[in-house]
Amino acid sequence: MANPVLVEVTRGSRVESRHRGAVAVVDADGSIVFALGRIERPVFPRSAVKPIQALPLVESGAADAFGFGARELALAQASHGGEPGHVSGVAAMLAAIGLDEPALECGAHAPAHVPSAEALVRAGQEPRAIHNNCSGKHAGFLAVARRLGVPHEGYVEAGHPVQRAVREALQDVTEAHHSAEMCGTDGCSIPTWAVPLQALAHGFARFGTGTGLSAERASAARSLYAAATSEPFFVAGTGRACTEIMATLAGRALVKGGAEGVFCAAVPGRGLGIAVKCEDGASRASEAMIAAVLARLFPEDEAVLGARATAPVLTRRGARAGEVRAIGAAFAGLNPRG
Amino acid sequence: MANPVLVEVTRGSRVESRHRGAVAVVDADGSIVFALGRIERPVFPRSAVKPIQALPLVESGAADAFGFGARELALAQASHGGEPGHVSGVAAMLAAIGLDEPALECGAHAPAHVPSAEALVRAGQEPRAIHNNCSGKHAGFLAVARRLGVPHEGYVEAGHPVQRAVREALQDVTEAHHSAEMCGTDGCSIPTWAVPLQALAHGFARFGTGTGLSAERASAARSLYAAATSEPFFVAGTGRACTEIMATLAGRALVKGGAEGVFCAAVPGRGLGIAVKCEDGASRASEAMIAAVLARLFPEDEAVLGARATAPVLTRRGARAGEVRAIGAAFAGLNPRG
Repeated sequence: MANPVLVEVTRGSRVESRHRGAVAVVDADGSIVFALGRIERPVFPRSAVKPIQALPLVESGAADAFGFGARELALAQASHGGEPGHVSGVAAMLAAIGLDEPALECGAHAPAHVPSAEALVRAGQEPRAIHNNCSGKHAGFLAVARRLGVPHEGYVEAGHPVQRAVREALQDVTEAHHSAEMCGTDGCSIPTWAVPLQALAHGFARFGTGTGLSAERASAARSLYAAATSEPFFVAGTGRACTEIMATLAGRALVKGGAEGVFCAAVPGRGLGIAVKCEDGASRASEAMIAAVLARLFPEDEAVLGARATAPVLTRRGARAGEVRAIGAAFAGLNPRG
Repeated sequence: MANPVLVEVTRGSRVESRHRGAVAVVDADGSIVFALGRIERPVFPRSAVKPIQALPLVESGAADAFGFGARELALAQASHGGEPGHVSGVAAMLAAIGLDEPALECGAHAPAHVPSAEALVRAGQEPRAIHNNCSGKHAGFLAVARRLGVPHEGYVEAGHPVQRAVREALQDVTEAHHSAEMCGTDGCSIPTWAVPLQALAHGFARFGTGTGLSAERASAARSLYAAATSEPFFVAGTGRACTEIMATLAGRALVKGGAEGVFCAAVPGRGLGIAVKCEDGASRASEAMIAAVLARLFPEDEAVLGARATAPVLTRRGARAGEVRAIGAAFAGLNPRG
């Protein structure tokens, strides 16, 4: 069975491109509330599970020991745009830990935020690891290594105590076995494990509600949820989907995207977790998909969510040539009171 | 019937994302030599038909009147990277026509070639229309307007004599009706008409061989083919698929990509035209698809073509995490002597 077409890209009155995908909305007990496509298929969650990957930072006591507040906990879950606020925030985390930028093992890339990338060019600087969208997560990993009293070198390797703790948290929250054959290497050099989309959604329901987690883990999840939703700029950045949606929902959902068309959300007030995967890996489609799901759950915020579920395609002169649109009928079966 | 999966993106030992698509290989008489997926479905060819869109430039006598040689005819078919050689080449075209940059109606965007984009930032300049990947095509349109003795203002509009001439050439070469309901607006503000993938492939077979075209049109197509294949840098740029593949095939194929996952090729020595469309619009997939088709036709150039049909996915530290790979078995039915 092929995944259904969930997002269309139009030009004029015609469909130009089509994105297929799968959607899982699951409650904290694991019951499927809504599903489209192949939700049993394992997907690499990539950066979408950064909130779960940050659990050891809180649980180990590292966050408290280094004085990390909401901004730092938001950065530890971030795929940030490399804006000045993000970079200075991560620099402050490193300073608190007592380490320098070269300790980051994520590799370098130019800021995704174009004005920040241009400012770097104008300053005659090459992008560094601190500009990597994952640098806050890696600063969190370094904090865990220090707290555990282990050498931080090699903290990105699967066998390092930091990644072992991350893997344990991912397995516990998603209840999916993170075996070697499910493992790949993420863009920032840490392991990423493929998890059935349904288990990913279930994990976010458990993360958001604490259901089935130890008291300590549930408390850490609450802290991370509160940090991401109260400081959404530090999770992504100016104009970005995660940031704008979390700012709009104002504490009602934690929303986090990942590379290759993954988006997840925790909606504790409804007891739900959401996971979507665009089959072909396109971010424009996974953004439309998560917005379409959230627009069903929060019809009162249709203005912002609908604009993300149906986004314009523009010419180079700014005229509207078409749109990227989630197919409304596909999502209509999701009950707003679900 | 869904289009088949033709390209897989792997991470570790697993498939992370999947691209579906269609492939048409057609001879100059219109016979299908090889087909995958929905080749009857109309697709917007976007920039892939720039070679055909340039026919009026030659046929009107404009190219000769303004002294355009192979480089200028290559630029008139180009989706260039905005490298210094591209920009100075288009500036020289405008100077020959007697017009200035503001006559270009394509809109502005930063050069796709990153070092050139960075150089612009360092120089404190905003991207201008001449940096638009389509600026050479638009300079060609302006030359046609001058040659026809009509006002050049509004040359991007469907009703302008330049676009009427372009539409006539597209209809004649592809033998597909370019009706109003097939029309959308391209990123550079000119009309683009959706054409069945099979007709697009047939059009490239006719363009490459001259079969079924008027003697004048066949001659113009030969000039454009010779220009693109002898000056491939000016069709795309450093490291780009079109440029590298044409340089490798050294006159045996004209290869041109378009936005939203389209790639076309004319292979006159075999009497063939090729058109591929990735259903979801991904360039990484259409590049792998066209390379896989050409690798079947030109096994002697497997080294270059195979590297485009299976490209590495790297971490930010440059380690191999997976690959973007055309599924070899899907293309195995294409006879190398086809």
